[in-house]
Amino acid sequence: MEIIKTINEVRLIIAAWKKEGLSIGFVPTMGYLHEGHQSLIERAAAENDRVVASVFVNPLQFGPTEDFSSYPRDLKRDMEVCRNSGAHMIFHPEADEMYFPDFCTHVDMDSLTAGLCGKSRPGHFRGVCTVVCKLFNIVGADRAYFGEKDAQQLAVIRRMVRDLNMAVEIIGCPIIREKDGLAKSSRNTYLSPLEREAALILKKSLDSGRKLADEGERNARIIVDTITENFVTEPLARLDYVELVDAFSMEKVDAVDRPVLVAVAAYIGKTRLIDNFFFEPASGLKTQQ
Amino acid sequence: MEIIKTINEVRLIIAAWKKEGLSIGFVPTMGYLHEGHQSLIERAAAENDRVVASVFVNPLQFGPTEDFSSYPRDLKRDMEVCRNSGAHMIFHPEADEMYFPDFCTHVDMDSLTAGLCGKSRPGHFRGVCTVVCKLFNIVGADRAYFGEKDAQQLAVIRRMVRDLNMAVEIIGCPIIREKDGLAKSSRNTYLSPLEREAALILKKSLDSGRKLADEGERNARIIVDTITENFVTEPLARLDYVELVDAFSMEKVDAVDRPVLVAVAAYIGKTRLIDNFFFEPASGLKTQQ
Repeated sequence: MEIIKTINEVRLIIAAWKKEGLSIGFVPTMGYLHEGHQSLIERAAAENDRVVASVFVNPLQFGPTEDFSSYPRDLKRDMEVCRNSGAHMIFHPEADEMYFPDFCTHVDMDSLTAGLCGKSRPGHFRGVCTVVCKLFNIVGADRAYFGEKDAQQLAVIRRMVRDLNMAVEIIGCPIIREKDGLAKSSRNTYLSPLEREAALILKKSLDSGRKLADEGERNARIIVDTITENFVTEPLARLDYVELVDAFSMEKVDAVDRPVLVAVAAYIGKTRLIDNFFFEPASGLKTQQ
Repeated sequence: MEIIKTINEVRLIIAAWKKEGLSIGFVPTMGYLHEGHQSLIERAAAENDRVVASVFVNPLQFGPTEDFSSYPRDLKRDMEVCRNSGAHMIFHPEADEMYFPDFCTHVDMDSLTAGLCGKSRPGHFRGVCTVVCKLFNIVGADRAYFGEKDAQQLAVIRRMVRDLNMAVEIIGCPIIREKDGLAKSSRNTYLSPLEREAALILKKSLDSGRKLADEGERNARIIVDTITENFVTEPLARLDYVELVDAFSMEKVDAVDRPVLVAVAAYIGKTRLIDNFFFEPASGLKTQQ
């Protein structure tokens, strides 16, 4: 497995692979890889001849008060995870390899980004779309893998790929959790032991909403209120949002009469965490554990 | 030569060509092809194994008061021009093949689009970037050919390709003119005989500025003023802008101390026409006739 730092080198290696007729899977990450990323790389390795993982903490998707500079980094460990999960290349560019000083082109999305994390993090999805578009163009993969924990991001990327006719298949993969239910996140490393305990409230409160939906509740307001009431019992947590939205358009709905996403974001101390579940009422079955 | 109307069919044919190792040149157009387009297709045919021309009047790049619905269309003649110039495929989609009803992704450029046509036509370059990005993703060409008449468009597309790491080479081609000097344009067809005569003022006034530059004038103001004074002698013409800008950033400059673009846009009756020349002071040579 190689670590490649320049766009030109990536292109050369990919061109050689393509000439051999090899299929390419791609897992874009910001590094500090956990079992969630690992599951993406393993799936990419199972479904493609070659796997590229990118490790790039993208400055463009962080707000001015967000944790860009403190975002955890550990390339050595990331290399281990990539190697053990079946990756063939890590693309790890510096920021100035990705962005010229007079960089001025962005990919913007008018819908899908108004609510949820788009509301709390203005400019975030502009940064995500732009860097993912760039990475797709650099890697030229057949398939790209994203975790369902970042459910809005996944919906946004699917839409971008559809709208801009990008020749890559987007594959969403289930949330990977700690044994006690906390969704795996690179940001979990920020949590003190007390905060780590308090962070369980995201999954617990979501579960209270899912139980209602499973039992047949179709009023979105009741599900959201139940999650909120459950959430606020945790004094160390501060709710950012609870939303129940259309699973594709990411627009708020009043009734659970279609596939929906129920998502929560919250601060545990200074650490912002997210979690969610998908629910499809037709079958009554959960589409994601 | 085939006319293809769906994205999926284009992809299948291109994939087969690529499998054979054939190189692909691409000429995106809005149809009503003239000798300018012809020169692009011929160059693409000379430099590539296969040539795709697209004919698509892109609604996204027209303002609400502009000439989208009246823009001239003549697919039969376009087919003749394409065939005679060496194209192998015309991609001619309907608008609903290109844009889903809930289409919501755009490519935006913060710089390069503030002046010149970007100022007169708000949203125009957003529409251009978005459709060109889509077409590039659909066709997957090795090289794409654009005329230097739309000089700002060419600079914008070059920047988009650089910033978003698109794997296509952009090739700018010289302006093709009528015998009397009028730059070829599909919109010339709108002109009455009297207007056709008056339209020569674009080239004539630009020539007065180029003469100054050739003679060593380096003060941008003087060049612009001379062109403007020359221009306003034509009563049937209404000036939109005369600008002298950096040839790459498209930003106004005070002195001709680098490669510059001198561009003019004007209304002849209701018809909006543009023309320009590049000038490079180091050598004193004109980079474009």
